[in-house]
Amino acid sequence: MTGKEWHELEAAPNPSPGKEYTVEISVPEFTCVCPRTGLPDFGTIQVRYIPDKKIVELKSLKYYMLNYRNLGIFQEAVNNRILDDLKDLLQPKMIEVVADFNPRGGIKTVVTSRWPDEIDR
Amino acid sequence: MTGKEWHELEAAPNPSPGKEYTVEISVPEFTCVCPRTGLPDFGTIQVRYIPDKKIVELKSLKYYMLNYRNLGIFQEAVNNRILDDLKDLLQPKMIEVVADFNPRGGIKTVVTSRWPDEIDR
Amino acid sequence: MTGKEWHELEAAPNPSPGKEYTVEISVPEFTCVCPRTGLPDFGTIQVRYIPDKKIVELKSLKYYMLNYRNLGIFQEAVNNRILDDLKDLLQPKMIEVVADFNPRGGIKTVVTSRWPDEIDR
Amino acid sequence: MTGKEWHELEAAPNPSPGKEYTVEISVPEFTCVCPRTGLPDFGTIQVRYIPDKKIVELKSLKYYMLNYRNLGIFQEAVNNRILDDLKDLLQPKMIEVVADFNPRGGIKTVVTSRWPDEIDR
Amino acid sequence: MTGKEWHELEAAPNPSPGKEYTVEISVPEFTCVCPRTGLPDFGTIQVRYIPDKKIVELKSLKYYMLNYRNLGIFQEAVNNRILDDLKDLLQPKMIEVVADFNPRGGIKTVVTSRWPDEIDR
Amino acid sequence: MTGKEWHELEAAPNPSPGKEYTVEISVPEFTCVCPRTGLPDFGTIQVRYIPDKKIVELKSLKYYMLNYRNLGIFQEAVNNRILDDLKDLLQPKMIEVVADFNPRGGIKTVVTSRWPDEIDR
Amino acid sequence: MTGKEWHELEAAPNPSPGKEYTVEISVPEFTCVCPRTGLPDFGTIQVRYIPDKKIVELKSLKYYMLNYRNLGIFQEAVNNRILDDLKDLLQPKMIEVVADFNPRGGIKTVVTSRWPDEIDR
Amino acid sequence: MTGKEWHELEAAPNPSPGKEYTVEISVPEFTCVCPRTGLPDFGTIQVRYIPDKKIVELKSLKYYMLNYRNLGIFQEAVNNRILDDLKDLLQPKMIEVVADFNPRGGIKTVVTSRWPDEIDR
Amino acid sequence: MTGKEWHELEAAPNPSPGKEYTVEISVPEFTCVCPRTGLPDFGTIQVRYIPDKKIVELKSLKYYMLNYRNLGIFQEAVNNRILDDLKDLLQPKMIEVVADFNPRGGIKTVVTSRWPDEIDR
Amino acid sequence: MTGKEWHELEAAPNPSPGKEYTVEISVPEFTCVCPRTGLPDFGTIQVRYIPDKKIVELKSLKYYMLNYRNLGIFQEAVNNRILDDLKDLLQPKMIEVVADFNPRGGIKTVVTSRWPDEIDR
Repeated sequence: MTGKEWHELEAAPNPSPGKEYTVEISVPEFTCVCPRTGLPDFGTIQVRYIPDKKIVELKSLKYYMLNYRNLGIFQEAVNNRILDDLKDLLQPKMIEVVADFNPRGGIKTVVTSRWPDEIDR
Repeated sequence: MTGKEWHELEAAPNPSPGKEYTVEISVPEFTCVCPRTGLPDFGTIQVRYIPDKKIVELKSLKYYMLNYRNLGIFQEAVNNRILDDLKDLLQPKMIEVVADFNPRGGIKTVVTSRWPDEIDR
Repeated sequence: MTGKEWHELEAAPNPSPGKEYTVEISVPEFTCVCPRTGLPDFGTIQVRYIPDKKIVELKSLKYYMLNYRNLGIFQEAVNNRILDDLKDLLQPKMIEVVADFNPRGGIKTVVTSRWPDEIDR
Repeated sequence: MTGKEWHELEAAPNPSPGKEYTVEISVPEFTCVCPRTGLPDFGTIQVRYIPDKKIVELKSLKYYMLNYRNLGIFQEAVNNRILDDLKDLLQPKMIEVVADFNPRGGIKTVVTSRWPDEIDR
Repeated sequence: MTGKEWHELEAAPNPSPGKEYTVEISVPEFTCVCPRTGLPDFGTIQVRYIPDKKIVELKSLKYYMLNYRNLGIFQEAVNNRILDDLKDLLQPKMIEVVADFNPRGGIKTVVTSRWPDEIDR
Repeated sequence: MTGKEWHELEAAPNPSPGKEYTVEISVPEFTCVCPRTGLPDFGTIQVRYIPDKKIVELKSLKYYMLNYRNLGIFQEAVNNRILDDLKDLLQPKMIEVVADFNPRGGIKTVVTSRWPDEIDR
Repeated sequence: MTGKEWHELEAAPNPSPGKEYTVEISVPEFTCVCPRTGLPDFGTIQVRYIPDKKIVELKSLKYYMLNYRNLGIFQEAVNNRILDDLKDLLQPKMIEVVADFNPRGGIKTVVTSRWPDEIDR
Repeated sequence: MTGKEWHELEAAPNPSPGKEYTVEISVPEFTCVCPRTGLPDFGTIQVRYIPDKKIVELKSLKYYMLNYRNLGIFQEAVNNRILDDLKDLLQPKMIEVVADFNPRGGIKTVVTSRWPDEIDR
Repeated sequence: MTGKEWHELEAAPNPSPGKEYTVEISVPEFTCVCPRTGLPDFGTIQVRYIPDKKIVELKSLKYYMLNYRNLGIFQEAVNNRILDDLKDLLQPKMIEVVADFNPRGGIKTVVTSRWPDEIDR
Repeated sequence: MTGKEWHELEAAPNPSPGKEYTVEISVPEFTCVCPRTGLPDFGTIQVRYIPDKKIVELKSLKYYMLNYRNLGIFQEAVNNRILDDLKDLLQPKMIEVVADFNPRGGIKTVVTSRWPDEIDR
């Protein structure tokens, strides 16, 4: 299950369609590969969204995250890619993705994206 | 007391009816059953409300939570069901319910509902 | 000193009368008695206020809290009673009281009152 | 899977049979029912053993723990029953079981059993 | 239930009589009264014992602890009195009692008694 | 250096005069004397300000805090005195002082003053 | 690599140029030298910015921070210098720098600068 | 009470004279003066002893600790002086004193003395 | 660097050959694959040894741990394999390996091996 | 003070020469340079010893630690060098040095040396 095939995200109908509520999901065992060094990166991905007509199916999200295990991708790109994939699938009222990476070389980075609101300054 | 009968929520008259104050209640030992796998889910339910004419009777809330122990129900549905039951009973000025579930398969979810205000974006 | 007599709250003149500042007081060893079961309740009382002409004398507050040690009183009533007693004595610009009780039967409650502002929703 | 059938523990052959090593297993979401009140108890079960010819199969242990979910059993009995079941199955060189229950009525209990060594005094 | 009558400790037969195991009990909401000042003391009582023929019945222990709520007794005496009462009732193989009091006047005390072993030096 | 002489606060020119930035300073080992009991009080003083033309010289602040070591002063007065001394010296754009005292007799106090803004209610 | 040469910051093109997102970077092992005493200071530098056309290249940032290891510079100046260097290089939509220094002589300082927004008062 | 007079330690008769038990006392707000710099030192004094015929009277211990507030004394000497004073007064079966000082100049020291046993190596 | 080739451990001569000292190494970002489910396992590997003539070269250990990233191996086998590889390479006076895995399905395991001493019972 | 000259350790006479007691010293801001990469290492040095005729003078120890700031030295060698320097100077009854380094490349090391006792296995 960590092989070559790409695991697609799947949606389910919103079980409370007329209500406005938030869903927060944490994936604390996220790992991908730095394309520059070939070494693995580790971190936590946090997703928060307000569903409209669909919610994300959690088992498909778990397998979707495995897609990154052997993928070379920059830390700055992971975040926006996950946001785009979830936004296209769910068409939510709002979605925010935070990628919080473990330190590398004494430097720790956290990247935060949100749609459609602007970032708090 | 964990058997088949359904424990109903009960209300008591607000002891400070002219005042606006909040009541927060945490139930850290909540458990229900995942309808897909038949395996138990564990988590914490947090309720926060501003009473109008009634408050929830705490002992009835404790037994009400036991209703879910052997009930198959999706995580996304638990939250809104508890909110609706409390809202119908208490007719509060505001009510918020947060369901914070323990991780399953490396993925942790938190669902937040509020009435009548919109969710903070 | 834990006997029958009632210890009254006492005020002192505000030592910085022209200034607007807040005083926060925590009483982590608060205890009273549940009138339904006769069993003791334990918790923390937090008071925050902006003085006008008077401040509360701390030693009298300490003894005032002892009044509740053997008093049968519902958790929902403790909070508003302390707020009323302090408000009447101090006539402050603002006062907030939070009663944070230890769990009983797996359920934990926190009650928050504020005067004259409305509660944040 | 939380129904009436009893889930049996299963053993697997020790993958490192000539070596002396310890295995520690924590089950933080253990729950059973108090036979006196009918109310649920929650706690953590910790098992530590030195395998001889067999190790416990972890998936069977997970289902075995579900057996207790709706079983009325005293806290003092849970511990020794789990120790006996594992000792009979595995015939280990040593085994210790700790049952650490959440507080009830302001009282918290931890029960520790070990075989064949005596308890540290 | 916090009145004048004295709540007696009660024993139950050891449910695992042939086995050597320890029982640890924590009572985090212990309170008594200082005989010198009349002010309340707060602390945690921890009991650890190896049962022989009897175990302590937990509900009776909970009520027994309430006996101290309005009793004037020195911190140094609480510990040995609880140890003696439990030792006389249970005739255990070993018993240890720790009384861990909250600070008073910037000084915190912990008293530890054990029977029949000597204290670790 | 803990004797009778009074250590004056000293200012230094703002090294970044055209910029708006905050400086936060914590003094966790503050001690003074309660004028009622003659006993010492301990706590933490926190200062936050936006400099205009001057910043406080840190070594002089360290010695200034020693002035209070044997000074009898009420907790409510410490805070406003430090704020006034710093405000007069620095003429900052904003200044806030928080005095967070260790508990005395089971009661803990925190006093917060700010200039020129009003306190958040 | 801790010698005399100055390590320049380097920028990379923003990989998500049309999106507004924040990047937070922590450097917990920052050290410089106090020009008054010649003794080292230790602390954490935190940078948060919203990129426009460029992001900072992390490896160059790591080496840039080494420039300060043997540099005599006042704590109040470190913060604004790092902010200016990053602002000139990246021309971001917003940038904030926090320098959080370990205590010296019982006094701890934190300096916060932000551009172009004013500081929250 | 922080003036020139020396507060003597006082003993009380052991209330449980035939029993072997330990008393642990923490004094977290200890302060003295460094004779080299004239600056104050802060720390925690921990005392653990097994009483024989006497116990230390806690109020006298609290005032005894105030003796050091304006006393110039080296950190290495504080510990042994307190141990000697308590040993002479109480003639206990065992006594241990730990002086745990806050860091000065980035260096933290803890001194431990015990009588009559040798230190664990 | 996370591909197919196997990264060998490398040794370096002990820089303090006549001395007895311990080296403890933690690898908090260890990951391998469960052969039963194909899903990744995450955990921390801790190694403690007393060198004789050789120490392990840390960079080679870092790459050696990457060998397990896509390797299907049971949790019970990981521990003993790492111990054997390090023991064969270093021929140390003592070596201990602890594999502390994150929970799976609500069950957490820790495996401890030591050579040549027996495990503490 | 972080320049080229070498700061020598200095001893002072033991102020309690007839007594056996331990002194523990922590230096949490230790830094040196890795000779392979030229990059700095950070960590904490802990020293514990039983003095005989001499104790280490703390200010000289603080400056001695600065010697390593720009010194290229392997992690495995730092520990034994500090132990040797202190042992030669103090001729203590026992001395132990622990060097606890921050992680590098996802690997954390701790080195422990003791004289004259053997290391606990």
